[in-house]
Amino acid sequence: MVAPHGLCIGLDPDISLMPPDFRSVHRIVDYFSIIINQTRHVAKAYKINTAFFEQYGLEGMQTLYKVRELVGSTYCVIDAKRADIGNTSAAYARSVFTQLKADAATVAPYMGHDSVAPFLDMGFTYILALTSNAGSADFQRQPLSVDNASQLFEYVIRVAEGWKGACGHGYVVGATHPKELMQIREWLPNAPLLLPGIGAQGADATTTAKANGNGPALFNVGRAILYASNGNDFAEAARTAAEQISMALSH
Amino acid sequence: MVAPHGLCIGLDPDISLMPPDFRSVHRIVDYFSIIINQTRHVAKAYKINTAFFEQYGLEGMQTLYKVRELVGSTYCVIDAKRADIGNTSAAYARSVFTQLKADAATVAPYMGHDSVAPFLDMGFTYILALTSNAGSADFQRQPLSVDNASQLFEYVIRVAEGWKGACGHGYVVGATHPKELMQIREWLPNAPLLLPGIGAQGADATTTAKANGNGPALFNVGRAILYASNGNDFAEAARTAAEQISMALSH
Repeated sequence: MVAPHGLCIGLDPDISLMPPDFRSVHRIVDYFSIIINQTRHVAKAYKINTAFFEQYGLEGMQTLYKVRELVGSTYCVIDAKRADIGNTSAAYARSVFTQLKADAATVAPYMGHDSVAPFLDMGFTYILALTSNAGSADFQRQPLSVDNASQLFEYVIRVAEGWKGACGHGYVVGATHPKELMQIREWLPNAPLLLPGIGAQGADATTTAKANGNGPALFNVGRAILYASNGNDFAEAARTAAEQISMALSH
Repeated sequence: MVAPHGLCIGLDPDISLMPPDFRSVHRIVDYFSIIINQTRHVAKAYKINTAFFEQYGLEGMQTLYKVRELVGSTYCVIDAKRADIGNTSAAYARSVFTQLKADAATVAPYMGHDSVAPFLDMGFTYILALTSNAGSADFQRQPLSVDNASQLFEYVIRVAEGWKGACGHGYVVGATHPKELMQIREWLPNAPLLLPGIGAQGADATTTAKANGNGPALFNVGRAILYASNGNDFAEAARTAAEQISMALSH
């Protein structure tokens, strides 16, 4: 399946941000069931970040699998940022693509090609390039002595563009870096990108859409939709937020 | 708890390598129970890599928690190589330190300080520096224009040496790189290191121990002990392998 273009909703459970009636782990599935029902008409994809489920232990893992089922046939990104040595990475790839039936997954590139290759052969893979957080400056933006002193994230993309897999790949670029997003788009107009950071992390939907131009991209929004309200109107508030952001992305 | 020094056994289930009677997911706990009983007298730590459990889905996750219980009060490293933006990394840190009760965990540094900080405050953390796989050449060994053209992994260590957390940290250095291990030891004689790659990945216990010198290190061995035999003598074979490697490490 080709990665779609448009709004991606990050299903990251944080029960402290939910309405009082939902503030327990066993209500996460109920909550997300409502959120998904209210947003499926504008969501081109959902992104599930494993961290928010793992934090609740085994009950969280059961919840992860149930939320994956809720997403159903809508495009599903499993955001796990895994990678390890070859045989171990193959186990991670089976976890996300076979067990969790992801349409796409995220991987961390630090360990190099053989740590990413098992993913590239099993499903669509978004490789971390320039992440949305402040810490992206620490290593990703350091200039290398090779390759005309490009920054590490540029070098990661340049090297990864040479990687061949059975299923295609793209890159994670934080929407919090619109200038670099524009530069990447000039360079790779057709690369599928996953763009997190809109909403609670500070990036703006319209600015991000303009910086991205016409390339295929998933614009991820989590908290700004999921927890648009923690009152009784949370479902309508999520629907309205998703519709507004979806509209902003198309302008 | 201070990270111990000596043999660390990597409890990575690969049922295809187990004796015929054990080749199903629901027998992993039985198998590791025997392995742990046969090796606890020489194992200073056990390392559990989450990938090998996640690949078996929810049943694998239940098994992960049971194997963690088997390790009991022996030092337990959860090797998950996680990291994400701040609030997400905090969820991962809770997963490994609160839910899985790890004594130590591994993290990937690509996303920078705020992606590692939640780990540093919750438990002892081994930061990936130079990993044991071939792909470590792709990015970790690239020279930077800053910092006297040190390679990325050296720069990661240099920067991370300035990070302060409540619980201390060390580095993952592949035993497959004995020359670089010696250089790191000259530089940081007292840094706790986690050294994977001995056995199936090709590194030798004695060579690694010599390269490490007297610094505190966990020498991880997985397959060479766990699957020393896939016959009826697997328990004795694991015990003998563990004892021999432990002996080789002390010379």
